[in-house]
Amino acid sequence: MFLTRTEYDRGVNTFSPEGRLFQVEYAIEAIKLGSTAIGLKTKDGVVLAVEKRITSPLLEPSSVEKIMEIDDHIGCAMSGLIADARTLVEHARVETQNHRFSYGEPMTVESTTQALCDLALRFGEGDEESMSRPFGVSLLIAGHDENGPSLYYTDPSGTFWQCNAKAIGSGSEGADSSLQEQFNKDLTLQEAETIALSILKQVMEEKVTPNNVDIAKVAPTYHLYTPSEVEAVISRL
Amino acid sequence: MFLTRTEYDRGVNTFSPEGRLFQVEYAIEAIKLGSTAIGLKTKDGVVLAVEKRITSPLLEPSSVEKIMEIDDHIGCAMSGLIADARTLVEHARVETQNHRFSYGEPMTVESTTQALCDLALRFGEGDEESMSRPFGVSLLIAGHDENGPSLYYTDPSGTFWQCNAKAIGSGSEGADSSLQEQFNKDLTLQEAETIALSILKQVMEEKVTPNNVDIAKVAPTYHLYTPSEVEAVISRL
Amino acid sequence: MFLTRTEYDRGVNTFSPEGRLFQVEYAIEAIKLGSTAIGLKTKDGVVLAVEKRITSPLLEPSSVEKIMEIDDHIGCAMSGLIADARTLVEHARVETQNHRFSYGEPMTVESTTQALCDLALRFGEGDEESMSRPFGVSLLIAGHDENGPSLYYTDPSGTFWQCNAKAIGSGSEGADSSLQEQFNKDLTLQEAETIALSILKQVMEEKVTPNNVDIAKVAPTYHLYTPSEVEAVISRL
Amino acid sequence: MFLTRTEYDRGVNTFSPEGRLFQVEYAIEAIKLGSTAIGLKTKDGVVLAVEKRITSPLLEPSSVEKIMEIDDHIGCAMSGLIADARTLVEHARVETQNHRFSYGEPMTVESTTQALCDLALRFGEGDEESMSRPFGVSLLIAGHDENGPSLYYTDPSGTFWQCNAKAIGSGSEGADSSLQEQFNKDLTLQEAETIALSILKQVMEEKVTPNNVDIAKVAPTYHLYTPSEVEAVISRL
Amino acid sequence: MFLTRTEYDRGVNTFSPEGRLFQVEYAIEAIKLGSTAIGLKTKDGVVLAVEKRITSPLLEPSSVEKIMEIDDHIGCAMSGLIADARTLVEHARVETQNHRFSYGEPMTVESTTQALCDLALRFGEGDEESMSRPFGVSLLIAGHDENGPSLYYTDPSGTFWQCNAKAIGSGSEGADSSLQEQFNKDLTLQEAETIALSILKQVMEEKVTPNNVDIAKVAPTYHLYTPSEVEAVISRL
Amino acid sequence: MFLTRTEYDRGVNTFSPEGRLFQVEYAIEAIKLGSTAIGLKTKDGVVLAVEKRITSPLLEPSSVEKIMEIDDHIGCAMSGLIADARTLVEHARVETQNHRFSYGEPMTVESTTQALCDLALRFGEGDEESMSRPFGVSLLIAGHDENGPSLYYTDPSGTFWQCNAKAIGSGSEGADSSLQEQFNKDLTLQEAETIALSILKQVMEEKVTPNNVDIAKVAPTYHLYTPSEVEAVISRL
Amino acid sequence: MFLTRTEYDRGVNTFSPEGRLFQVEYAIEAIKLGSTAIGLKTKDGVVLAVEKRITSPLLEPSSVEKIMEIDDHIGCAMSGLIADARTLVEHARVETQNHRFSYGEPMTVESTTQALCDLALRFGEGDEESMSRPFGVSLLIAGHDENGPSLYYTDPSGTFWQCNAKAIGSGSEGADSSLQEQFNKDLTLQEAETIALSILKQVMEEKVTPNNVDIAKVAPTYHLYTPSEVEAVISRL
Repeated sequence: MFLTRTEYDRGVNTFSPEGRLFQVEYAIEAIKLGSTAIGLKTKDGVVLAVEKRITSPLLEPSSVEKIMEIDDHIGCAMSGLIADARTLVEHARVETQNHRFSYGEPMTVESTTQALCDLALRFGEGDEESMSRPFGVSLLIAGHDENGPSLYYTDPSGTFWQCNAKAIGSGSEGADSSLQEQFNKDLTLQEAETIALSILKQVMEEKVTPNNVDIAKVAPTYHLYTPSEVEAVISRL
Repeated sequence: MFLTRTEYDRGVNTFSPEGRLFQVEYAIEAIKLGSTAIGLKTKDGVVLAVEKRITSPLLEPSSVEKIMEIDDHIGCAMSGLIADARTLVEHARVETQNHRFSYGEPMTVESTTQALCDLALRFGEGDEESMSRPFGVSLLIAGHDENGPSLYYTDPSGTFWQCNAKAIGSGSEGADSSLQEQFNKDLTLQEAETIALSILKQVMEEKVTPNNVDIAKVAPTYHLYTPSEVEAVISRL
Repeated sequence: MFLTRTEYDRGVNTFSPEGRLFQVEYAIEAIKLGSTAIGLKTKDGVVLAVEKRITSPLLEPSSVEKIMEIDDHIGCAMSGLIADARTLVEHARVETQNHRFSYGEPMTVESTTQALCDLALRFGEGDEESMSRPFGVSLLIAGHDENGPSLYYTDPSGTFWQCNAKAIGSGSEGADSSLQEQFNKDLTLQEAETIALSILKQVMEEKVTPNNVDIAKVAPTYHLYTPSEVEAVISRL
Repeated sequence: MFLTRTEYDRGVNTFSPEGRLFQVEYAIEAIKLGSTAIGLKTKDGVVLAVEKRITSPLLEPSSVEKIMEIDDHIGCAMSGLIADARTLVEHARVETQNHRFSYGEPMTVESTTQALCDLALRFGEGDEESMSRPFGVSLLIAGHDENGPSLYYTDPSGTFWQCNAKAIGSGSEGADSSLQEQFNKDLTLQEAETIALSILKQVMEEKVTPNNVDIAKVAPTYHLYTPSEVEAVISRL
Repeated sequence: MFLTRTEYDRGVNTFSPEGRLFQVEYAIEAIKLGSTAIGLKTKDGVVLAVEKRITSPLLEPSSVEKIMEIDDHIGCAMSGLIADARTLVEHARVETQNHRFSYGEPMTVESTTQALCDLALRFGEGDEESMSRPFGVSLLIAGHDENGPSLYYTDPSGTFWQCNAKAIGSGSEGADSSLQEQFNKDLTLQEAETIALSILKQVMEEKVTPNNVDIAKVAPTYHLYTPSEVEAVISRL
Repeated sequence: MFLTRTEYDRGVNTFSPEGRLFQVEYAIEAIKLGSTAIGLKTKDGVVLAVEKRITSPLLEPSSVEKIMEIDDHIGCAMSGLIADARTLVEHARVETQNHRFSYGEPMTVESTTQALCDLALRFGEGDEESMSRPFGVSLLIAGHDENGPSLYYTDPSGTFWQCNAKAIGSGSEGADSSLQEQFNKDLTLQEAETIALSILKQVMEEKVTPNNVDIAKVAPTYHLYTPSEVEAVISRL
Repeated sequence: MFLTRTEYDRGVNTFSPEGRLFQVEYAIEAIKLGSTAIGLKTKDGVVLAVEKRITSPLLEPSSVEKIMEIDDHIGCAMSGLIADARTLVEHARVETQNHRFSYGEPMTVESTTQALCDLALRFGEGDEESMSRPFGVSLLIAGHDENGPSLYYTDPSGTFWQCNAKAIGSGSEGADSSLQEQFNKDLTLQEAETIALSILKQVMEEKVTPNNVDIAKVAPTYHLYTPSEVEAVISRL
């Protein structure tokens, strides 16, 4: 099996005889090596929580950004290659700013997600905007627009889904099971914070501290929690 | 056989000694992995029905879009790579809008289908609009124009056919047989709904619910059924 | 023999040591898999007849177009990849319309054929108009201009010949022999219809019906026979 | 020998260790498969004669063009891939017309030949005018300008030579020997016609008829012989 | 393991089946061959110290530049391919100058670092600004802006982190351990100089002299130490 | 040795591990297959003499041009691929004409040679002016400018040398030895003619006649000898 | 070792698993085949001396240029591929002339060296100015500017170093050792001439004559020694 696979998987964007796109599947593997991120939607807003891997005590924890603002009303958590994520986020920021300028109103969360996925889909085409390989990153996009709060999940193939809750990264399998057990539609934002962090705690190998997790919410605007706000959530566990 | 085949199938758009285009054949394989979709034409309009695979209870069923509107009078169901389908649909939307703007009247269903297939045929040419590989998606295009209702079926080679009824995706073989038995030209739209859903039910491994199927009609304008409208059809089975 | 051949035939447009272009030869193989088409020239006009393969009773026979109009005075029958043929025909339609617009008169049949072959020859050159592989289609081009009726035959190499009668596709070998026996320069158009259909009948595995053959004439303008006109020819066999 | 050769001959335009360009040599092989063409220069003008292979009695002999006019004062006979020859001739026609337009006088035969060879030399360079492989055709270019009549011979490498007489194609070896025996500088045009056709007759496997040979002269303007003029030459043999 | 790896690592920018980018990993190897560089952030400014390998006594030590000024308020130390580093630094200088010109104020240290990493990420894309391979260099970027002093570390993947202290190059492993032991947030600039040089001394095989080390600080402006200033630090060890 | 060499020599312009450029070395082999050419500089001017290989008595000897004029004061003899040489000479003619037009004076012989070599060096770069492989030709460039007469020798690597005398082509080894024995700085132009032709005679397999050699001089302007002038030199041998 | 190396070294600009760029290393090999060149800096100016390999007594020694002027105040000696060096020098001449024109003052020696190295670094990028392979040449760049005399050494990787003395080419190893022994900062220009030539004499296999060495100085302007000036230095040995 493995030998015949190698015949097809080096073409960046080529189907195998079974109808598969191996470079995209390999990029998805890259995400399984990434740190865990969790998103939960409540009726009042969306909560994002991520594990930060601080490989050295000399690293500035705040510089390991795994949750980023896209626009006032949209933020995203990421798992996989951070440099790839930064390119996607930068692209989304330009798109949302252009939309505000052209139409005088914020871009919807779905359109923003679609714009990100269009770029992700176009890898290997050699034009100016696209990468020469798939983007090795998954995103949880949290936003709030005229349709209320929403949470989207994207993968390296350029596909996206709307979710009530979702985990990505190396601990996503266990975290997804826990989310299914604990999620219900009537969660408050505070309950969502607690659930997200308690699940993250289970999949992390270290003690949870404001240094190795980040939390953000979009409710209805983006806010990244300060260390003391994170501490407050930790103390509720 | 397999060994000599591998000599030819990696060139994206190259004939084998037997006159075959393997990348296109492999893309057709991708569709056999996709969820099942069914289309039926009646004298009053066209019905589309698709299976939705909801891999997690936390996924928003409405965000798994497998039936999409192209224009007021045209919709399509898809099977295969959803991100590829979105690109084709987006292209068709631009084409139909441009046509309305230029000529003051809606584009015919056949012209819209031809425009989609032109894009699908041009893969591997490296220009701005085309993909670097075949589009891994089949479409059932339902429409209504001056010639009445019509249903088209496209495959990754850029070929299209007009049909009275057609199934695509993993369950298409069994579904096509059932369609040939049950189709006749005098079906009412309501009978078509029932036949489409009852066939879909046979090929799905789960119980049919408004969460895991979508139904739409073009009669004469596009309409995606609400959960309660889907429930009504289910109750008639 | 076969092994050394594989060394050369993957370059899209490269000579083998014996001076052969294998991709073109393979594209010619694609045509041998196609349905049979027949053309006959008479002093009063040209007749085209094609076999249509209707793989499912749910397919709309009229949508399986294997004879197409290029201009008022030119039509063509095709065998091979239909999507490729559509691209060539669309190109020819633009050329003939441009000619009418620029010169106020119809394009001659030979110039139209040359324009088609120029496009076919340029494959693999990577420019905007050309394909990245040979066009996998042969055409029988029937027309009527200031030189009277004419019939041209093109192959994937971009070469064309003028003929009195010609068959292409999977049944072409037997059909060509029959044509040589039965053709003479004094045939009437009606006799030509009968000969074309009787030969097509021999190479088809099914009973001939208005659903599985198409007939057209250019005499002096293009006309695709209606089902009842086809039925009339069938009844004369 | 053959194995090491395969290491080098697939690069379209690359030297082998012995300093050879194999793709050009292979294209020359393509010409050895072509029909035979003969040119003879006399003091009164140049005669061209070609074998036409009519593979089917239904083919229109006049459409198998192997002698073509470039300008009033220049014609050429060809052997090899006819579609390639048409591209070269079309290029030469544009060049000679542009020259007439720019300078008010006909282009010399040598300049026309040089322009053809420039295009032939540039294969594999990927620009707009050039082919992606060598042109698989040799030409005998007959012309008449201020220096009197002249005959040029070109091969796929883009090299050209001026000759008194020359044969190309599958029968060229025997034909060249006969030409050396029979040629002298004082031949009349009529004697040249007879010699050309008698040599062509030796290398052809069929009886010579106006249907399977073409004759043209440039004396001082291009003229393609009518069937009855060809018949007259045949009757002199 | 090694054999399968070779299947993937030659594509410049392609994922392996495990989701890895080997060319980037190999570029990181290039840095492990480089000379050691150390950065330390204090509340008063940032100190950079590098080992210079003077392979010949005839080399001008001052021309072996391994610490460079980017702007008044930003400098960087490098390890790996010096020519690659010069390209990155030159790019950063243009960016910071453009920023001053456009906005009338200095570029922040993070934006400057992001601009460097954007260029590093885009390798293999064939456009004008990018390299055809990863940049084989790591940088320690020291700066001082409205947020006070800061130290960034970049690697060939285009990723960056903010640090309190960091070592790169062949001796980085041992140096990083020593930094973790000796670093605290209340260090004075003078203490930082001493720590940096004492750690560098441990990993170098030669005696430390003003000829084989360079020291610079950004406090708040960039300053490269003169030989006598370096001598002063050495004398404090 | 040969096997490892094949690993490197197919890249058009790539160094082997020993620091060699094989495609250039192979192009130099192409010249060793070419006809012999000889150049001699005297204080009164430069003499060029070449062997012409007339493969058929029907070839026009004057059309086998192996000595060509570049400008009034510069000519060149060539050995190798004649079509390549024509491209280089045409380029040089444009350069010298442009120089005359821009500066009102002739281009120096060295600048003309440099311009030819610039083009030769740039092969494989894919831009508009350059070839996709090395030029398979060596030139002997004879000229006369403000510095008096001069003779340059170029090879396919784009390198050039100024010489007093030089032979190129298949017989160059023996001819160079003879030139070293017979050359001295006080030769008259007539003595140079005699030496050149007598050496050419030694390396040719046929009797020397005005048909199979060409002689030219630049003294101080370019002049190609007429058959009777060549005959006069032959008679002096 | 050698086998795995071959897996990586054919990509023009690709890292091996150990972080090495083999094409650059191979280009450095090309220089080890080159003739020896020596540079020495004194307080009064810089001396360059090179070995010239005169392969034939018929070659004009002055045309074997291995020392070239870049600008009034800058010259360079080279070892490796002379045609590559000419391209670099021509590039540097344009840069220094542009600088004089734009700023009204000479370009510094370091900026000129940087400009040369920028071009050398960019190989394999396919743009207009760059080569498709590394430049196979090393330069010793001697200059004099506002900072006094200076000597730079560049290699094919695009890296440069400032030196007091340096040897390049096939004899560089022995020559560098001798330079280290004999160099001191108080050498006069005349002593430097003598040292350079005496070291060159040791590594050459022939007797030193004005024909097989060149000497130049920049003190403070560029001057290439005449044969008699070279003779004078030889006589001092």
